[in-house]
Amino acid sequence: MTKKNKKSKKTNKLELIPLGGVGEIGKNMFLLKYGKECIIMDAGLKFPDEAMLGVDIVIPDTSYLLEQNLNLLGIILTHGHEDHIGALPYMVEELNAPIYGTRLTLGLLEAKFIDNPVNEARMYEIHPDKTLELSPNFKLDFFRTNHSIPDSVGVAVETPEGTIVYTSDFKFDQTPVDGEITEYYKLAELGRKGVIAAIVDSTNADRPGYTLSEKEVGESINEIFRLSQSRVILATFASNIHRIQQVIDAAVRHNRKVCVVGRSIVNSVDISSELGYLKIPKGVLVDTDKISDLPPEMVVMITTGSQGEPMSALTRISQSEHRQVSINPGDTVIIAANPIPGNEKLVARTVNNLYQLKAEVIYQPVSGVHVSGHGSEEEIKMMLNLLRPEYVVPVHGEFRQQASCSKIAQKLGIAEEKVFLTKPGNVMEFSGGRGRMAGTVSAGRVLVDGFGVGDVGEIVIRDRQTLSEDGIVIIILAIDPDRNRVLAGPEIISRGFVYVREASDLLEGAKESLKKTVKKINNDQLQDWNKIKSKIRDSASSYFYDRTGRRPMIMPIIIDVPNDNDINK
Amino acid sequence: MTKKNKKSKKTNKLELIPLGGVGEIGKNMFLLKYGKECIIMDAGLKFPDEAMLGVDIVIPDTSYLLEQNLNLLGIILTHGHEDHIGALPYMVEELNAPIYGTRLTLGLLEAKFIDNPVNEARMYEIHPDKTLELSPNFKLDFFRTNHSIPDSVGVAVETPEGTIVYTSDFKFDQTPVDGEITEYYKLAELGRKGVIAAIVDSTNADRPGYTLSEKEVGESINEIFRLSQSRVILATFASNIHRIQQVIDAAVRHNRKVCVVGRSIVNSVDISSELGYLKIPKGVLVDTDKISDLPPEMVVMITTGSQGEPMSALTRISQSEHRQVSINPGDTVIIAANPIPGNEKLVARTVNNLYQLKAEVIYQPVSGVHVSGHGSEEEIKMMLNLLRPEYVVPVHGEFRQQASCSKIAQKLGIAEEKVFLTKPGNVMEFSGGRGRMAGTVSAGRVLVDGFGVGDVGEIVIRDRQTLSEDGIVIIILAIDPDRNRVLAGPEIISRGFVYVREASDLLEGAKESLKKTVKKINNDQLQDWNKIKSKIRDSASSYFYDRTGRRPMIMPIIIDVPNDNDINK
Repeated sequence: MTKKNKKSKKTNKLELIPLGGVGEIGKNMFLLKYGKECIIMDAGLKFPDEAMLGVDIVIPDTSYLLEQNLNLLGIILTHGHEDHIGALPYMVEELNAPIYGTRLTLGLLEAKFIDNPVNEARMYEIHPDKTLELSPNFKLDFFRTNHSIPDSVGVAVETPEGTIVYTSDFKFDQTPVDGEITEYYKLAELGRKGVIAAIVDSTNADRPGYTLSEKEVGESINEIFRLSQSRVILATFASNIHRIQQVIDAAVRHNRKVCVVGRSIVNSVDISSELGYLKIPKGVLVDTDKISDLPPEMVVMITTGSQGEPMSALTRISQSEHRQVSINPGDTVIIAANPIPGNEKLVARTVNNLYQLKAEVIYQPVSGVHVSGHGSEEEIKMMLNLLRPEYVVPVHGEFRQQASCSKIAQKLGIAEEKVFLTKPGNVMEFSGGRGRMAGTVSAGRVLVDGFGVGDVGEIVIRDRQTLSEDGIVIIILAIDPDRNRVLAGPEIISRGFVYVREASDLLEGAKESLKKTVKKINNDQLQDWNKIKSKIRDSASSYFYDRTGRRPMIMPIIIDVPNDNDINK
Repeated sequence: MTKKNKKSKKTNKLELIPLGGVGEIGKNMFLLKYGKECIIMDAGLKFPDEAMLGVDIVIPDTSYLLEQNLNLLGIILTHGHEDHIGALPYMVEELNAPIYGTRLTLGLLEAKFIDNPVNEARMYEIHPDKTLELSPNFKLDFFRTNHSIPDSVGVAVETPEGTIVYTSDFKFDQTPVDGEITEYYKLAELGRKGVIAAIVDSTNADRPGYTLSEKEVGESINEIFRLSQSRVILATFASNIHRIQQVIDAAVRHNRKVCVVGRSIVNSVDISSELGYLKIPKGVLVDTDKISDLPPEMVVMITTGSQGEPMSALTRISQSEHRQVSINPGDTVIIAANPIPGNEKLVARTVNNLYQLKAEVIYQPVSGVHVSGHGSEEEIKMMLNLLRPEYVVPVHGEFRQQASCSKIAQKLGIAEEKVFLTKPGNVMEFSGGRGRMAGTVSAGRVLVDGFGVGDVGEIVIRDRQTLSEDGIVIIILAIDPDRNRVLAGPEIISRGFVYVREASDLLEGAKESLKKTVKKINNDQLQDWNKIKSKIRDSASSYFYDRTGRRPMIMPIIIDVPNDNDINK
């Protein structure tokens, strides 16, 4: 920060670098850099795909930022979803910068720090109508947006090289549940003054038309409550406060009591009620253990598990494994979400289980119990026409959606070369009113497994892959190196390969075959452990493949047993 | 068969037992039994779900059939899809019964036997207009149906206890590509004469209305060909001969040459052309290596990979890894399929990769390039109204679709108790015009891994699961049992747990800690290997969990090293 005044404006360029949030779902993080100063916008996590065996979460790689020794002025959070704030607990101490977010966003972030304690997190509230000047080079203005969580904002960053606008997740909901419509006038004013680049939410760029209003979901829910004589159990995302509000409103209208089931949703209901984002009339909420005292037509349960997550309340309820709630025949279960890609089978399993318990399940996309929080093609057009950016940076969603966003921009007359389809680490440089792709810095994913952040990489994952496919066969040989003698073994032990009790012939045969392999090794070669191991590996590998068609990991272990080595001495 | 005449009609009941095809996708197999005689309808495989690590395919369990020593009169195949014929190569020798199928079905089955040779398979062609009398108790009639593969039939089995109808996969396509409309008159006649039970395809029972005709796909494809000036690459299922025919017809109309890419689709095009199910005018097909000689607007490639299958042609093309075909910018790629549940991410990856290569990709459900081969709600109603069965057995699809089929039947006035929602092994008994659930026999899934059929079970899969999550830590101790001495170790080796090169402190620390654990063991306890192992396991497990939050498989191995044991002697 002390060097700031030494910089000459001419040599500095504005650099925009996605550290995540492009080319794959989630894990949003954008670095905006001018000279040695920079800000970060969002710091999200994503959940691992099925190939990242054993990995808990994936966070963006901030090594570039740390290695460059930049002056990080602040971390700006646009809303409280995991894919925008979830990585912070893993990097806040290292980044050591103030955090800015709206009230609800910070409220949800604080709850995360209870689960993942950090020594210090300096948090400051964003007031969407006030400018936040982090330095003369970084003046931030905010605009309220509509999304599937309250208190969402977009950011306009005024820099010496022009204004960068980051829409973050948005839709244009003309009838938002909380009445807070998008601040169109701010967007229009930004467009009038000039925007060098807009970072645009492309999640639904491949969907034609407009995304429906969240209010439509309220009407569907209301209609279900009106017609149903049974208990209603509704699963939604814990952070979808607007939807929870609509369920509560419908419950009040139809004289039902509401019970909130599941740790994360209880948490989010508590925080958002306390902060005034959720309005629950007195006497509406009931405890789970009071449900059985009420007639079925007076009960609503709001819960999690709309993605079929194995540990969630609805999943456990559907498997008759929930401690407090069980399905009664005739219960109506509403799954108010579409499956996130990759979760389809989990959701289907939950639905099948609920049908087995004779519940009515409302889960089809046509049922009107879910709308997306992201704008479709026409909303993206509207956003671009309001902002009128020189350059467009499609982000969020997958590459196919970003490519669709590029096509939308082109339909509006923006030249293809002014749309930057990027990957994490790609540098976009803006200077003198012109933008260009300017190389790549190190960026990518960091895998978190247990307490380990980044210690699980390609090699470990590849080993897990092999182990998961065909298991492991361990072959042990004890050798006395002094006298070049095999003292014991080969012993064979396997896991995840064959059912040992029914494969004794196979394993005995392997032992005999390996004994021959070992015998063929000359005594003077017993010094060369690598050679022995490789001979054992080849021999065992082809023995097992010929007989089983499988390729377990073969692990020869040679143990050195000198005569005088007794650790119990 | 010799005992047939000794049976008294009164003691025999007709039993219908699903061995697969209920409660989960695929793996269709139905056993119909009367006294000691029985037939099997279909013998399908399914692909493993993500939890069945390393498993190649899943087939039905036929142990009940074999243990009961039944007289299997025949195996009836309704059409040539994997989920109806794919398990046969793994069980045909054991079942040792004649196989019946239509011409194309047997043609496709023969090709499977080339890949999975069997000693003998007696195959007989079904002529849909001829009765097949397997015994006085089993008279089979067939009716042509519409499905996404030609030569599909349903089966009506006349038995002493009434007629069972198995619709197998069907839709009512009023404008089928090959002009072979469903034989409605046969269905109506069956209904008139009386059907005791109908086994009904429920795959799309949760979709309202009617399924569109395959011809609609032809029109969409034709329109794309008409408008496109680029090469067109279309991916579909290899066995969807009607669709391939329509692509060829459109190609001829728009003066394009057709190149077939991918082993399975070349195979299926060969078989169906040879048998007359596919009509390709001379000069339309070209070899892959001739494509580059043609202008782009004259090229169509038909290929596989519509499900994003890792080894398929389109997947390799999308990853620029195909030996002969690569994407040119502007190529139009049509993915003429919906993702099967579980494949969504694979398909999305292929689409993203194709966009990266600057192809136009047509993959959205709204694009009209795919229709289902299964009938929707109104078609199921029509089927039930034609057959007018006493009892309904919803099969295919998942439980939720079978439950939807039950509701459809109830809408038509069939009582809920006359709809049997079953699981594999459930016995339905029909006698004197009445049906009832009559217990359960052993049935279920058999896992095939490599050459092993059924040798991989719960324990092996559970071990693979543990190994895939956090890897394995092997701890070796060499003991001289005679003198109760530890001769070497503990040595620690890990795979899939941590990156060893960066975890030397962790592993060294573990070694020191385990040395202490071993030292605490009294010499006289060194005889009790189980106790030593359990102490090592507990100690290592908590050491690693405290430091990494992970729970690798801990595998203590004790090796016995007597002085005189030298296999090299």
